[in-house]
Amino acid sequence: MDLLNLTLSEFRFLIETKRVKELRIVFEEWHPADIADMLTYLSLEEILFLFKTINKEQTSQVFSYCTIETQERLIEAFSGPQIKSILEHVEFDDVVDFLEELPDNLVRKVLQNASESQRQEINILLSYHPNSAGALITTKYVEINEDDTLKDAINKVRSQGKGAASIQTCFVVNQNDRLIGTARLKDMMTNPEDELVSEIMETDVISVNTKDDREEVVKVFSKYDLSVVPVVNDQFCLVGIITVDDVIDVIEEEATEDIQKMAAINPLEGSYLQTSVMDMFKSRIPWLLVLMISATLTGLVMEAYAHITVALTSLVMFIPMLMDTAGNAGSQASAMVIRGIAIDHLDIKDFFVVLWKEMKASVITGVILFVVNVLRIVIFSPSLGWGIAILVSVAIFFTIVLANLIGGSLPLVALLIKVDPAAMAGPVITTLVDVVALIIYFNMAAFYLGRVLT
Amino acid sequence: MDLLNLTLSEFRFLIETKRVKELRIVFEEWHPADIADMLTYLSLEEILFLFKTINKEQTSQVFSYCTIETQERLIEAFSGPQIKSILEHVEFDDVVDFLEELPDNLVRKVLQNASESQRQEINILLSYHPNSAGALITTKYVEINEDDTLKDAINKVRSQGKGAASIQTCFVVNQNDRLIGTARLKDMMTNPEDELVSEIMETDVISVNTKDDREEVVKVFSKYDLSVVPVVNDQFCLVGIITVDDVIDVIEEEATEDIQKMAAINPLEGSYLQTSVMDMFKSRIPWLLVLMISATLTGLVMEAYAHITVALTSLVMFIPMLMDTAGNAGSQASAMVIRGIAIDHLDIKDFFVVLWKEMKASVITGVILFVVNVLRIVIFSPSLGWGIAILVSVAIFFTIVLANLIGGSLPLVALLIKVDPAAMAGPVITTLVDVVALIIYFNMAAFYLGRVLT
Repeated sequence: MDLLNLTLSEFRFLIETKRVKELRIVFEEWHPADIADMLTYLSLEEILFLFKTINKEQTSQVFSYCTIETQERLIEAFSGPQIKSILEHVEFDDVVDFLEELPDNLVRKVLQNASESQRQEINILLSYHPNSAGALITTKYVEINEDDTLKDAINKVRSQGKGAASIQTCFVVNQNDRLIGTARLKDMMTNPEDELVSEIMETDVISVNTKDDREEVVKVFSKYDLSVVPVVNDQFCLVGIITVDDVIDVIEEEATEDIQKMAAINPLEGSYLQTSVMDMFKSRIPWLLVLMISATLTGLVMEAYAHITVALTSLVMFIPMLMDTAGNAGSQASAMVIRGIAIDHLDIKDFFVVLWKEMKASVITGVILFVVNVLRIVIFSPSLGWGIAILVSVAIFFTIVLANLIGGSLPLVALLIKVDPAAMAGPVITTLVDVVALIIYFNMAAFYLGRVLT
Repeated sequence: MDLLNLTLSEFRFLIETKRVKELRIVFEEWHPADIADMLTYLSLEEILFLFKTINKEQTSQVFSYCTIETQERLIEAFSGPQIKSILEHVEFDDVVDFLEELPDNLVRKVLQNASESQRQEINILLSYHPNSAGALITTKYVEINEDDTLKDAINKVRSQGKGAASIQTCFVVNQNDRLIGTARLKDMMTNPEDELVSEIMETDVISVNTKDDREEVVKVFSKYDLSVVPVVNDQFCLVGIITVDDVIDVIEEEATEDIQKMAAINPLEGSYLQTSVMDMFKSRIPWLLVLMISATLTGLVMEAYAHITVALTSLVMFIPMLMDTAGNAGSQASAMVIRGIAIDHLDIKDFFVVLWKEMKASVITGVILFVVNVLRIVIFSPSLGWGIAILVSVAIFFTIVLANLIGGSLPLVALLIKVDPAAMAGPVITTLVDVVALIIYFNMAAFYLGRVLT
């Protein structure tokens, strides 16, 4: 058996036969994230056996990489001393990450096993809003003073650095704990050791406030290409730092949220396979209901123009195509604007620029679709004649223009009325664009019928 | 005038009146990313004035934060010595980032002004596929040997560290340049200085190959919570490192790409405001054409069942609602599965798990929509009667189930036939689900008519 490339069943076999020596080698050699992956497939008993057998530092490491579902199962099963050892070995921002997801009784169980100082620190971190910068901070960083010599400062790195999340950048505070600068370790190590920190520190520090939204934090990291950002309170005192690896998860979660909202799903956390059927149902049904009922509008339009479909039955066959094209054009424009808002600071002040751009792009697109559609109908359905071909294609042209204008402007309007652009876009645009497309279509048809009949 | 909080027009005023002293202060105090933001609004003459007046290191810094459009304008206008100075002060991975986007004549202009060794290094970096790990690497890292003492190793950090992108982690190689481990600077600084690197290094190194796809690189960073990852060639020799801040842009670009593909747009780089109308048109028209023409299918279905819509004209008014609901249900399922593939390693082996989950969720959803729709029709359109109400609602139920199954399985099928799941989902699902919905609807209607007429 190759211990470096175990299959799941070989791993289980080692546990069942209690091959402790081999298991210790696995924990020694494997990355904790890979072991955590395996644990999702094991029974609670099997995992508990591992946590009893293997040394606490390694199992705690593995614990911090486990999914929240596994962590919850484990906390429920753990004894007091086992929880104490987790609190000792897992970084505090990771502890807070899973505490935020746990039910209240398990949070209490964890806090009861924390020491007084651990409890204080955890409570401060838990008091921040889950979507705020405060919820992302770690308090393990190296703090130095402006009047330290570089030698003193490097000694502080040696003593405080052991558990620090990042030592690349040290944070310089004055006597009142106010953040006044940052010093890069590489500058501290490559300059004479009797120089003062104040001589090499950068004073134009980019920082965020504990209350800032986590999307704002992502923008700061991405704009300034940072690997760590200090977090200050309202008095500008340093309370913690955020490292870039914790921001990666935020970016992925935010992108997932946007995609879900645009697909008319209420945001869901957790992976697809771990999401329960009930949660899937609950996240999907609200918008389907809203959309089905708002589609009554399209029904009303169809009813109002029933005389036209009766007079010109061949028109009905183009309705699905017209509606699909309208919906696609609308979501093309809205997807670009929504992403522009999320990433490039697109704002309501750009409203007319966006509208004008969409106008130009949609006219070109509309003309091409008009031409292709006229040819398609004339060639493949010659019995319908040029009249119908042009009628349907003119309707497509106007539908494209209006769908792009609506799709492009609605996300910005959402900003103005303080609604999430992504949540507004998908669902509202579908119905709105469909209604507009049908009204255009039937009015074109009424005009055509008027000309044909007179 | 407050130099720390200049408005754009004040900044322009300083340039027009050639207030060099104040401008130097601005460049000294501001973050280069903020100055780069300002430059997008300036004329080429104004920017060139700044680049002549301010010291080269600072302007080069600003240059590396500029948008690719501004960088292109500048490279075109720069003299040979100005390009030489940019090459000297900008990190090589950033140089390669903009070279990849420049037209060939400008790339030649840059390379002509590079020194022999710079040209070699740039050419190696340029030879990697733009979507590969190789294209993300920086070659500025600290390399140490396994038999160095910690004191020697720290001295190497001092000498190589000045320009290094990351000194938190040093990379340990053997005599053949093979990567054999990593050593954390904090461990090197907090252990006795006569210990050997081999005693404190980690040997289970997570690394990526230069040819790995950049999405794979993102997964590695996110799974193992890394801040830097070493990149090796096929011989396992260390050729560079990737730092997490460069991965942030990749994550955002990949998410944008997914969103665009799901909205049936061919991926576009660059911000909304900087995208030209022609590029917008070109990215949107292909799918609109494909979709319009494939919607011929829905037209054919409508035509085939024309006798039913003639016999039961009230059925037509529900077609838009039915199609919207089908489209929404399809995109809800596909969005979740596509995101699952991108983030949580969902794979074709999970095909039946996904199908079964979608089946269960869709039956619950379908039942609720059935009940609500029956009530809606009976209450608001009593003239249609229970028969039509149940007919339409049963069609909705089956449409939801099939739309969810199609939406959930198509992205996985895309994986199997090696097509991008996001690109397949949006466009193909719309038409497919619509056709299925219409066929169900008309068959239900035919069944109903058969019972009513006999």
